[in-house]
Amino acid sequence: MQETNSVGIVAAQTAHFAQPLTLKSGAVLPQFDLVYETYGSLNADKSNAVLICHALSGTHHVAGKYSADDKYPGWWDNLIGPNKPLDTNKFFVIGVNNLGGCHGSTGSASTNPATGQPWGAQFPVVTVEDWVASQAMLADYLGIKQLAAVVGGSLGGMQAMQWTLAYPERVCHALVIASAPNLTAQNMAFNEVARQAIITDPEFHGGDYYAHGVVPRRGLRIARMLGHITYLSDDAMGAKFGRKLKDGIHYSFDAEFEMESYLRYQGDKFAGEFDANTYLRMTRALDYYDPALSFNNDLSLAFKQVKAAFLVVSFTSDWRFSPARSREIVKALLDNERTVSYAEVTAAHGHDAFLMPDAHYHEILRTYLNKVQV
Amino acid sequence: MQETNSVGIVAAQTAHFAQPLTLKSGAVLPQFDLVYETYGSLNADKSNAVLICHALSGTHHVAGKYSADDKYPGWWDNLIGPNKPLDTNKFFVIGVNNLGGCHGSTGSASTNPATGQPWGAQFPVVTVEDWVASQAMLADYLGIKQLAAVVGGSLGGMQAMQWTLAYPERVCHALVIASAPNLTAQNMAFNEVARQAIITDPEFHGGDYYAHGVVPRRGLRIARMLGHITYLSDDAMGAKFGRKLKDGIHYSFDAEFEMESYLRYQGDKFAGEFDANTYLRMTRALDYYDPALSFNNDLSLAFKQVKAAFLVVSFTSDWRFSPARSREIVKALLDNERTVSYAEVTAAHGHDAFLMPDAHYHEILRTYLNKVQV
Repeated sequence: MQETNSVGIVAAQTAHFAQPLTLKSGAVLPQFDLVYETYGSLNADKSNAVLICHALSGTHHVAGKYSADDKYPGWWDNLIGPNKPLDTNKFFVIGVNNLGGCHGSTGSASTNPATGQPWGAQFPVVTVEDWVASQAMLADYLGIKQLAAVVGGSLGGMQAMQWTLAYPERVCHALVIASAPNLTAQNMAFNEVARQAIITDPEFHGGDYYAHGVVPRRGLRIARMLGHITYLSDDAMGAKFGRKLKDGIHYSFDAEFEMESYLRYQGDKFAGEFDANTYLRMTRALDYYDPALSFNNDLSLAFKQVKAAFLVVSFTSDWRFSPARSREIVKALLDNERTVSYAEVTAAHGHDAFLMPDAHYHEILRTYLNKVQV
Repeated sequence: MQETNSVGIVAAQTAHFAQPLTLKSGAVLPQFDLVYETYGSLNADKSNAVLICHALSGTHHVAGKYSADDKYPGWWDNLIGPNKPLDTNKFFVIGVNNLGGCHGSTGSASTNPATGQPWGAQFPVVTVEDWVASQAMLADYLGIKQLAAVVGGSLGGMQAMQWTLAYPERVCHALVIASAPNLTAQNMAFNEVARQAIITDPEFHGGDYYAHGVVPRRGLRIARMLGHITYLSDDAMGAKFGRKLKDGIHYSFDAEFEMESYLRYQGDKFAGEFDANTYLRMTRALDYYDPALSFNNDLSLAFKQVKAAFLVVSFTSDWRFSPARSREIVKALLDNERTVSYAEVTAAHGHDAFLMPDAHYHEILRTYLNKVQV
């Protein structure tokens, strides 16, 4: 496969922050690490940095590979690289693993300096606001005063939005994709079922499973299977699997339909890789994010402080973060006479569409990013 | 509360079938019981019988109460009674618990005569076709050659449909409500997640938990919580709960949002009452039902044998059994020049709307049933 437009072999770096961080909950992290990757070069006046914020199960490994024979590139590799829509010839791109994550940044599996044991259940509940605060510390660490853009899909889009609220002077453009200004009750309900599957797994041990040498694999597997249903549209599942049987009906509870094998595979894979405490915290951060809450539920009031220009993108078949939710963001920006472009992309893939290399979608991003001045 | 239009105090009866029943899977039930209730009086020529088929968690207790101080009437009590839309002054109404159920009909918790132990995992996987075959045996038992109508919502609607296919001469009218000619991949996926939550519960013991004196309560609870999300529309959940907090944000994984308390309550309640093996079998019957499958996936071909007249009803906010699925049934009937009325009811309650006493919906049923000749 031709890889001339890949960022190539990449390596993660770690930034250590020795100063305490007070979280929105009031809890204090005495110190923490953020693991991150960068692609492209920071220009002389440090004006070309683009921060990528990840969603529920994402990581700092956004583009490139870790070795020549690495089969899996970063999760948004189709978007980021030389001459790709997010062009690393122009931009210095930063991927970061969020606080509470399980891919290198400080989280529940990390050592609590006060005890010498894993944080486990004691690791605080982190919020979108906390992530953005820690990401701003990473920007400081890299000497970046202002980001050319913050880009994110889904929960990542909430972080991009929050950047424009918390640090209006520090972000020129926010690309908010397949996102929403808060979760609907239905979305929160799916999160609650996923969390309950994990928490009631006998091997969860109240979140301190590390000490028991087990992981709540059953619960995490159920959570992921459920998640996958909501990432795809009904039509996409129909097109991909429909009612296709593997080899006929056997009147059993085995995986007889292809869709069942797919879900079990995805669940098993995830349960072997991801940390349950991180899953709990990522979904809770999603639940809590609601910038309008302290503005009498008026998003337009909340957005008064925004200075960044926005690109908002939604996908027609996304029933978890529907176009109507993106339009709420657009409306709040227009109410404040801010600069916003909005694209509603016709796509069959549901919420997952934001990760797909759809030509129309990518062209929208390319066109927008081409105009971003650095 | 005025109860002049209640069927009053009712009692369940049991029909024992001593002859073996060969199921669609090839498995043979050597004998079985069906528990049922009746409301109203069978007329002299036995032409006024209406069979009610229940959905996933329904029972034979469709209307009336078991005692004067019984708080909870049957599950479709708002529909059935003297002068109600399904008028027991006119009709003899039969409710029956399906084979494999856990409310009195033979199922996994029943004694396997071959072993003297509960059937457990050995109880066969039953299908919609098997239920209808056993219901026809119950009609024989009651001396009823032809049903004035078969009525069902959701999975119950599938049984009403199947009656018109398996016994075209024995059913005059089929009322198929909030149903579909088969499940979509998304629907089957929700079933699969629910089943996997049950099956991977350590207390499931391969389906033979009775012998261990436990029940897979955690898994059944998760299954029910998930089910509840899909019975309500996103809008209905928004209207009912929205993002309402119980008493503020506590940065915990406790039930902080009202919706979370609701789901946990529903899950706990169900897990204490329902049998997990029944849940597995009900969902599998839903998955398998697909009358077009043996007709080259052509529902119109499958419906050639239908003689009954149909009333098909769907609800605008039902995303689990959408109006489009009901229209497939209508189309297949029209392709065969059968008599069909179709109503798409504007309703906010999602799939659950079929159980609600919506005035417009009930008027549709009343008008249709008034015209049924007995």
